[in-house]
Amino acid sequence: MAIQRDATRILNRHPANPLIRQEDHPGIAQVFNPSPARVGDETILLVSVVEHAGSRGHGRDVGQTRVARSTDGINFTLGTEDFISPQAAGEPWDLYHHFIDNRVTPIDDWFYIVTPVMVAGFGSPIAMLGRTKDFTTYQRLDTISLPANRGASLFPEMINGRYHRLDRPTTPTRAGDIWLSSSPDLLHWGSTRPVLAAGSRYWTQDKIGSTPPIRTAAGWLVIIHGVFTPAGGTSYHLGAILLDLDEPWRVIGRTNSPLLSPETEYERHGNCDNTVFACGALADADADELWIYYGAADSAVCLATGSLSEVVQACLEGW
Amino acid sequence: MAIQRDATRILNRHPANPLIRQEDHPGIAQVFNPSPARVGDETILLVSVVEHAGSRGHGRDVGQTRVARSTDGINFTLGTEDFISPQAAGEPWDLYHHFIDNRVTPIDDWFYIVTPVMVAGFGSPIAMLGRTKDFTTYQRLDTISLPANRGASLFPEMINGRYHRLDRPTTPTRAGDIWLSSSPDLLHWGSTRPVLAAGSRYWTQDKIGSTPPIRTAAGWLVIIHGVFTPAGGTSYHLGAILLDLDEPWRVIGRTNSPLLSPETEYERHGNCDNTVFACGALADADADELWIYYGAADSAVCLATGSLSEVVQACLEGW
Repeated sequence: MAIQRDATRILNRHPANPLIRQEDHPGIAQVFNPSPARVGDETILLVSVVEHAGSRGHGRDVGQTRVARSTDGINFTLGTEDFISPQAAGEPWDLYHHFIDNRVTPIDDWFYIVTPVMVAGFGSPIAMLGRTKDFTTYQRLDTISLPANRGASLFPEMINGRYHRLDRPTTPTRAGDIWLSSSPDLLHWGSTRPVLAAGSRYWTQDKIGSTPPIRTAAGWLVIIHGVFTPAGGTSYHLGAILLDLDEPWRVIGRTNSPLLSPETEYERHGNCDNTVFACGALADADADELWIYYGAADSAVCLATGSLSEVVQACLEGW
Repeated sequence: MAIQRDATRILNRHPANPLIRQEDHPGIAQVFNPSPARVGDETILLVSVVEHAGSRGHGRDVGQTRVARSTDGINFTLGTEDFISPQAAGEPWDLYHHFIDNRVTPIDDWFYIVTPVMVAGFGSPIAMLGRTKDFTTYQRLDTISLPANRGASLFPEMINGRYHRLDRPTTPTRAGDIWLSSSPDLLHWGSTRPVLAAGSRYWTQDKIGSTPPIRTAAGWLVIIHGVFTPAGGTSYHLGAILLDLDEPWRVIGRTNSPLLSPETEYERHGNCDNTVFACGALADADADELWIYYGAADSAVCLATGSLSEVVQACLEGW
């Protein structure tokens, strides 16, 4: 029996890591979990930020989303304003201000953004859909999911005439499996399908969650996170799965091991120890490159790169 | 300050209770939680039934739905076959066979049925939409909700050009609040809104859940269940809320107390002690009658009736 590819050796951490660090931004309690996009020559990250209560008059220390911009994908300038505004005027409910861990997907001429939104008094996140063309102006569309659904991820194009998204519901008995929904218009969703349950490997024991799928010739590549909880506390890893291009509820490949596990000092220690977490990735099939921006220990934004085709191959060789 | 109406005294248990009893149907482990409909002169109940494993070759003792028919609304004949068939041929997932606690809503020429469906290996229920004209033939439509969503309830008509439903998601932090979704076509749903959180009264402490709304001049009347858990085990009660006719996420009334609490021997003791639970009600505005069929202790089907207008008034007088 041939020894399978070691998926933990495909990605390389960038030598400039961490690219964005909490300690460089006074008033910030946490900076982490970016969602990437390419707009012309610019690389954009929607960065999850937690400010200390009162530092900007919020009165509560909950999360927000800021835009970071770069012309080389390495050196980023982090904005100072909250980019996401899901509360519409006159609404009788309070969409609790904790807008982190967005998932960005380019569809047609827009970048669509799915944001997990907390509702005051009603607990766990629902999914809010918004969009932008330039990451300067945010257009709120509507809520598109019941709770609890953290990290819903849109596919970048229709499949058989319908939009699709990956969901990550959390229930009392299942902490995080991956499901699929589809839609005629991005606003109304149905045809719920189970895709992949947590629990088949040590690093996916507690839960798994998706990022926006990337089309490859072999299938939809999805960078996932996986969580398990040894006695010392949670441990967050990154891996990948491959979904059938026409029947995206069919898992046709997955990495045997994580692609990336907490190993460096900045991944091992911070506001949440032993955490690498991604909300998306950028791919260039011609250059055979995959760029995964990720949060490290809820205290920094980092980058790991590697061969796109090798990651796909590792999925196909997986169990 | 005027003493408010005692909502616990509006309904009267029918003297023929229990109308359907477990002990009259050999091979049945439980019979409970009916969803009612009127078809011409007939009263139909979709009755939740659990058969003993192997009694009909299922190999597992999970729930099913049977049709009970009556010409007087009191004396019912319980069918012997499972009415709901949510699994479509060739699907790669296993829609675990536990189809109980349906919610039936007449819309146009059809009776639409929302069934909580378990998915093997993926835990808590999703919502399956089906329909029938005669309760003889069941037409499966599609899944319409992520987990966990037990007891989704359709409104009987469009509001402002859209279909609406009440949802009851369950999350790790909220056992059961009432939410609202809306749809252009009954198959695809969005515009998620919080409606009412559990916990404001002792009998709604743990969770609440809805049944299909009934249009009245004052608002949408919704019979709800409420649960709390003293040291002795769960206690299930029935109450009512009133929603604004045009903005159905606005609660404009609710009963101060339960309408019905477990009091009789057949409600106090059975397969699940101290339980009264409804999946719907029948109303006749001209006769000023409300008929609530309910499950008693997961062991019987019962009936309580009372003045429709008094129940609405009790909601309007509530806190």
